[in-house]
Amino acid sequence: MASDLPAGPEFGPQADVVAEDRPGRGVSRRGLLGAAGAGAAGLGVGVAAGFGLGSHPDVAAGSAVAAGSATYPFYGEHQAGIVTPAQDRLHFAAFDMVSDDRDDLISLLQDWTAAAARMTQGRDAGPFGATSGPYEAPPDDTGEAIGLPPAGLTITFGFGPSLFRQAGRDRFGIAERQPAALRRLPHFPGDNLDADRSDGDLCIQACSDDPQVAVHAIRNLARIAFGRAAIRWSQLGFGRTSSTSTSQATARNLFGFKDGTMNLKAEEPALVDQHVWTAPPAVAKEAWLAGGSYLVARRISMTIEIWDRQPLSEQERVIGRNKAVGAPLSGGGEFSQPDFTLTGANDQPLVDPEAHVRLVHPSQNGGVQMLRRGYNFVDGSNGLGRLDAGLFFLAYVCDPRTHYIPVQTKIARNDAMSEYLQHTGSALFAIPPGVSQGGYLGQALFA
Amino acid sequence: MASDLPAGPEFGPQADVVAEDRPGRGVSRRGLLGAAGAGAAGLGVGVAAGFGLGSHPDVAAGSAVAAGSATYPFYGEHQAGIVTPAQDRLHFAAFDMVSDDRDDLISLLQDWTAAAARMTQGRDAGPFGATSGPYEAPPDDTGEAIGLPPAGLTITFGFGPSLFRQAGRDRFGIAERQPAALRRLPHFPGDNLDADRSDGDLCIQACSDDPQVAVHAIRNLARIAFGRAAIRWSQLGFGRTSSTSTSQATARNLFGFKDGTMNLKAEEPALVDQHVWTAPPAVAKEAWLAGGSYLVARRISMTIEIWDRQPLSEQERVIGRNKAVGAPLSGGGEFSQPDFTLTGANDQPLVDPEAHVRLVHPSQNGGVQMLRRGYNFVDGSNGLGRLDAGLFFLAYVCDPRTHYIPVQTKIARNDAMSEYLQHTGSALFAIPPGVSQGGYLGQALFA
Repeated sequence: MASDLPAGPEFGPQADVVAEDRPGRGVSRRGLLGAAGAGAAGLGVGVAAGFGLGSHPDVAAGSAVAAGSATYPFYGEHQAGIVTPAQDRLHFAAFDMVSDDRDDLISLLQDWTAAAARMTQGRDAGPFGATSGPYEAPPDDTGEAIGLPPAGLTITFGFGPSLFRQAGRDRFGIAERQPAALRRLPHFPGDNLDADRSDGDLCIQACSDDPQVAVHAIRNLARIAFGRAAIRWSQLGFGRTSSTSTSQATARNLFGFKDGTMNLKAEEPALVDQHVWTAPPAVAKEAWLAGGSYLVARRISMTIEIWDRQPLSEQERVIGRNKAVGAPLSGGGEFSQPDFTLTGANDQPLVDPEAHVRLVHPSQNGGVQMLRRGYNFVDGSNGLGRLDAGLFFLAYVCDPRTHYIPVQTKIARNDAMSEYLQHTGSALFAIPPGVSQGGYLGQALFA
Repeated sequence: MASDLPAGPEFGPQADVVAEDRPGRGVSRRGLLGAAGAGAAGLGVGVAAGFGLGSHPDVAAGSAVAAGSATYPFYGEHQAGIVTPAQDRLHFAAFDMVSDDRDDLISLLQDWTAAAARMTQGRDAGPFGATSGPYEAPPDDTGEAIGLPPAGLTITFGFGPSLFRQAGRDRFGIAERQPAALRRLPHFPGDNLDADRSDGDLCIQACSDDPQVAVHAIRNLARIAFGRAAIRWSQLGFGRTSSTSTSQATARNLFGFKDGTMNLKAEEPALVDQHVWTAPPAVAKEAWLAGGSYLVARRISMTIEIWDRQPLSEQERVIGRNKAVGAPLSGGGEFSQPDFTLTGANDQPLVDPEAHVRLVHPSQNGGVQMLRRGYNFVDGSNGLGRLDAGLFFLAYVCDPRTHYIPVQTKIARNDAMSEYLQHTGSALFAIPPGVSQGGYLGQALFA
């Protein structure tokens, strides 16, 4: 009988023994992947089919959970979760420091690095795990991901402008190293920003094909931050809208249109180098960001009820593509380049002068491109009988001053689509480069 | 060139031709399942592995989208989405009528029936579809599910007490037929209800393994309701917490514990008949509900940050099961019956007197059981540095007066878990029986 007893006060595992060594007692995530694999597979969601630049999925061998078990390396030249094939689900969180102590910031980044390195590999957040630590201590993992494969989990970290200077204060001794491009985004026409959905000292983007895995990651990183940083805002996304790999089909946004056809793809490394990774720093104070990027996050509410009452002709005019397959209205297939000079009946251009596809096209924006990684969201309803729905826009760019601000300024003024949008959240973060084994996120910033 | 041109003003399909007949122009969901199947499969999420009572999945034959393409019949003795193996994702919405016209209510139920019958089979919400209707009219489907398989979509409808009587008014001439059991739930100890997350004239539960499919269903049903009913509140759930079939592994809630081990299962038809479907009506006025059920919906916020700081010992004491595998603390495996009489060290019961597993066990509640179908949720953060997270509790019972109210009254008072919970939303709905071909939802109510 005793051998069947679960861990209890008399039978709890010892503090100095980790889960992997005690298969009969505590259960690690790895341990359960085999045991409960067939059942757990029903919770996993698809497999990221593509191979990202520098982020080659390493599907666990010999596991019963082939589906959903893509695993991406945490360590590397760049952070994962940028050119990694966009996973299906998102949990994004912005944090504010609640401590002004530089050592607290450094220790937080060290602790986050260790936990992210573990969780992205399908392990518990801490070395003991959800069920195998000291029985009279809080577990170092919260447990809701026990038995779930990582499902392509990536965790990507960023630093907001306020981390460097908050109301002129240099809390952490890093103000001198704030990049010139890392400033609060300007107010754009039509912005209706909610301060509770904007900005933040730090950000974490957790992407996975299983939402429970993404939520587990953010929740555990928030738990680890306790006393040092607290969540400022968080956003779930249920459907990716931009593919970042040619291996992925283009998904649809809540206007019902394919979104991201022209997105930068991992398979275009020269373009990614040019448009996503920060240029070699012109000044030494920004050297810590070499190999990094900038992340623009915008919560874009869509007035879908009004959109839904527009004729198909108007919807297609606004987007500049047809709804069925995403082909530009100038003809061809989804991936055909639009011809903005072609005219149809009455000598009107087939692609309207105000069409979204025209205004955002690189040819109309000095050649700049973004790597977008947005997600559809529905956050309940708005109290007026409508869904609070839209697109959580995420874009990685080498410099927001050249690659985002001019484009958004133009489309906010002229894009026919803007009539159906309201930007309700906004943030900009510097994305430090990847981490080497033994190092920690943003380490060069503190050197 | 002309043959390559997408649908445009000069090439738009005619109003009298439906998508299925025009494969070269508009694109129906069915049409795209083949064409874009391999790519779209990455968006699908798992396959409901089990076969529900009266809801046998009918996986589309010859399709490239095996994964995620489970399809459940819409028509039947009972509504689908109750004993159907619980899908992974939820979009739930409560509606209020904005019209007081009985004919509007009937036509709404007829229109909802037709759209749900279509969408659950992977078709567009309306007969033209997202891209093949009249070019100068709004599409009768919003399009974001083009190319996505139904992924086990079920759509389940219910009627709230206020549909029958609203502040004493009989708006729709059905007050006389309000079931005696269909009353607003009482106030329970610890309730902290938000009126904007409670009650409603009507409800729709959309479950699918793909959240975009569930959202698409609610969004299109809300679109169809325009002018007759509007969304009162809506809730997304990302992770099922209760399996409803023995073929499914038990999933975990945000306390990190397995949830629903003791749930009623579709494979127990006698128990389902006894506890889920309404008893043969004692009075003629309730005959319309024969073969139906009642749905209790409770939004339960969890103070996960406080929970996460409790020792594993305390967490297991509160639940009464071990965290690793879900076995009762009296011993055995996950599915072993707890022995509430067994004592351990110091003659203390191994399963605490306040443990959740003890208080909700049928043996402690006159034998009553519920069919639970809850989902984990995270709705951003609460402005106090914490995630707004919890469990959206859904339970189907034959009578809330015997099967829910007494149990909830007891656990709200005595359950150790209540310290970590706050009920923030509450609703009760009568669930009419299933629909026959040619009929509509709740038709017997209007006969």
